[in-house]
Amino acid sequence: MKQLIGNAVVGQSGGPTAAINATLAGVIRGVSEQLGTGSITTLYGMRNGVEGLMQERLINLSEYFDTEEKLALLEHTPAAALGSCRKKLPKPGENDAFYEAMIAVFRKYNIRYFFYIGGNDSMDTVAKLSAYTSAHDYEMVILGVPKTIDNDLVGTDHTPGFGSAAKYIAVTTQEIIRDCAVYQIPAVTVIEIMGRDAGWLTAASAIGRVVNGIAPDLVYLPERTFDLQAFFRDIRAALKRHPNVVIAVSEGLRFADGHYVGEGTQTGATDAFGHAYLAGTGKALEFAVKAEIGCKVRSIELNLPQRCAAHLASETDLAESVATGKAAVQAALAGVSRCMITAQRVSDEPYRIEYVPKDVSQIANRIRYVDDAFINAEGNHVTDECCRYLLPLISGEAFCSYENGLPKHLIL
Amino acid sequence: MKQLIGNAVVGQSGGPTAAINATLAGVIRGVSEQLGTGSITTLYGMRNGVEGLMQERLINLSEYFDTEEKLALLEHTPAAALGSCRKKLPKPGENDAFYEAMIAVFRKYNIRYFFYIGGNDSMDTVAKLSAYTSAHDYEMVILGVPKTIDNDLVGTDHTPGFGSAAKYIAVTTQEIIRDCAVYQIPAVTVIEIMGRDAGWLTAASAIGRVVNGIAPDLVYLPERTFDLQAFFRDIRAALKRHPNVVIAVSEGLRFADGHYVGEGTQTGATDAFGHAYLAGTGKALEFAVKAEIGCKVRSIELNLPQRCAAHLASETDLAESVATGKAAVQAALAGVSRCMITAQRVSDEPYRIEYVPKDVSQIANRIRYVDDAFINAEGNHVTDECCRYLLPLISGEAFCSYENGLPKHLIL
Repeated sequence: MKQLIGNAVVGQSGGPTAAINATLAGVIRGVSEQLGTGSITTLYGMRNGVEGLMQERLINLSEYFDTEEKLALLEHTPAAALGSCRKKLPKPGENDAFYEAMIAVFRKYNIRYFFYIGGNDSMDTVAKLSAYTSAHDYEMVILGVPKTIDNDLVGTDHTPGFGSAAKYIAVTTQEIIRDCAVYQIPAVTVIEIMGRDAGWLTAASAIGRVVNGIAPDLVYLPERTFDLQAFFRDIRAALKRHPNVVIAVSEGLRFADGHYVGEGTQTGATDAFGHAYLAGTGKALEFAVKAEIGCKVRSIELNLPQRCAAHLASETDLAESVATGKAAVQAALAGVSRCMITAQRVSDEPYRIEYVPKDVSQIANRIRYVDDAFINAEGNHVTDECCRYLLPLISGEAFCSYENGLPKHLIL
Repeated sequence: MKQLIGNAVVGQSGGPTAAINATLAGVIRGVSEQLGTGSITTLYGMRNGVEGLMQERLINLSEYFDTEEKLALLEHTPAAALGSCRKKLPKPGENDAFYEAMIAVFRKYNIRYFFYIGGNDSMDTVAKLSAYTSAHDYEMVILGVPKTIDNDLVGTDHTPGFGSAAKYIAVTTQEIIRDCAVYQIPAVTVIEIMGRDAGWLTAASAIGRVVNGIAPDLVYLPERTFDLQAFFRDIRAALKRHPNVVIAVSEGLRFADGHYVGEGTQTGATDAFGHAYLAGTGKALEFAVKAEIGCKVRSIELNLPQRCAAHLASETDLAESVATGKAAVQAALAGVSRCMITAQRVSDEPYRIEYVPKDVSQIANRIRYVDDAFINAEGNHVTDECCRYLLPLISGEAFCSYENGLPKHLIL
């Protein structure tokens, strides 16, 4: 493939993370480092992903990021500095007008390089656009750059953004366990962690097991069917060992009949304002334990801070996120297209990964579940092997800068 | 008052905080510094407050904390290293046998100094014990050492523990606002913050106003009656300004009829397991906004991490917590008793406080509400004056030590 000459565009898509801006910074650094070779002249950012691209809401990133200070600040800013979207592209062949309009924008700005930072859905965008452009005579290099706190992309050891979310969860769990240890009365604390399909984030709550021996008593992942009676038995056994039982559960837990634990099968249940009530998984289990066991019970939903707590980002994750962005630019310049940049773990000790582009059509719309070897036989905890896989991903603290006690963020 | 000679005991009581162990470290440091004067020979720690004291579950802290490293680790460990309790003492005169049993323990261990670290309820313990011992011929110095994330003790500028909770809330709010800004569709995010009676913690969500101009659009404190129609009007006005409305609410919001917003007046409402459902304030408002305005709505309960997130402690708070503990020992050695150590702000710029003992009977069982001047006329935000009062309390970052990506905690 001959070297394309033109401009590049980068976008962020899907749920934000604490590290997606570090990946954006990596793309900016990658383009900046090749300046002078003549391949990419200007790097544009699309605001709100492909939605903003269609409306020509572009920002000249090559111009804006003219200092190292701005790039460093971007790397430590949570969420998505360019904005995001959840736009699903039409299937090629079903709405050609959509793609033609997009290509018209590419032509207008002479865009020949397309970098899209996102998760499963965003890789679907990359795959569809790759398929369309290659069939319709618009020469373009298209690369997916992974990010998802869920760690559920196939073909890669892990995903940028996951390590920081995992670190927040692991640290917060340690702090919650300390907090719960202060009283002597029997109490159950349920921590609800993100992860609709895959239990990677919930597994991260247990990393302490291989560091200081401190972890939740019980851990339930969506990879295993949730059985309420087994859950009660597990809790009763744990309460016999010590009074402060802490349990980590994935939001995506389901019963054998396929219903989510937090789904709210109840009919007619209403809240103070008369509105139908949908419990979260943690809340539903809180009520269940209170009714069955009768001890003090509370639930804690870690919620949005899991994905935006940049103040506790993993240094390894941020560094890898930057490296992934740079690797995407380098692959693009080497003529690679229609791929996502994956991380391959080449060594555990010392921990070392390599970046390898893989066919994005083999990655999009698939889910990587927690390995069987990472879940114990009882289905109520993770294995040490799982914790050892996770441990290097939360290594190091990427503290942000503070001003008057508050973190400094970059707003584009 | 002549100088008492004997041993000392210290306890932690009430809800844990990220700084209560720093105050404990301050007491240990204070006692350690006077060693050799002959007043206090040994400092004991009571496990689980007065409950453990009655059971003689004591730990020799003078012996245990033999290195600076251990003390530093204690200062950065969240929750209560000695354990806590919520024991309410009988009124003097109602159950003398209880007090006599306690005094028997004091005699057995020759304890002449009693330090109790806690909030309103703990100061009640200090006041009652002071009243009893002074009337019953047991010479003892009794001092209350404040801690509460709620900042609701009267007679003091602020309370140890509050600054770290306020910092966690202020920083997390900034991160949530970044996260919420990524999409273009109208959305309301309700952040529920602790504070049953006083709105200090919720006010802390707005500190960014005087730092970087970033704060929730609306802030509702329990000091003002909550009016649902005014709330809807406020949100509609905010949505006209920008699509991502973020709102901070105290868990203790009440309607004009005195009912808590999160109280769950509904009868017959049940969750998936058929149990009666009690909504949180944030969840209740989430449902209300969804039904009334119909846009995307979510609620986030900051929950326990507010009080145990030692990884984001305020440097000012930790330093003051240590200083308060030391001030208590110094006051005790100077013959002060039946007092709580208060903080008096003697200067705003530069920020400076002094420690002054005040009669604990004037502090116990009272609540300090957010000043009228700190709440705007509409009752839907705090004033800049409020933010300027709060700002120095979150100043500086007291990062803990990490090992393999996780914080190091001291477990007694």
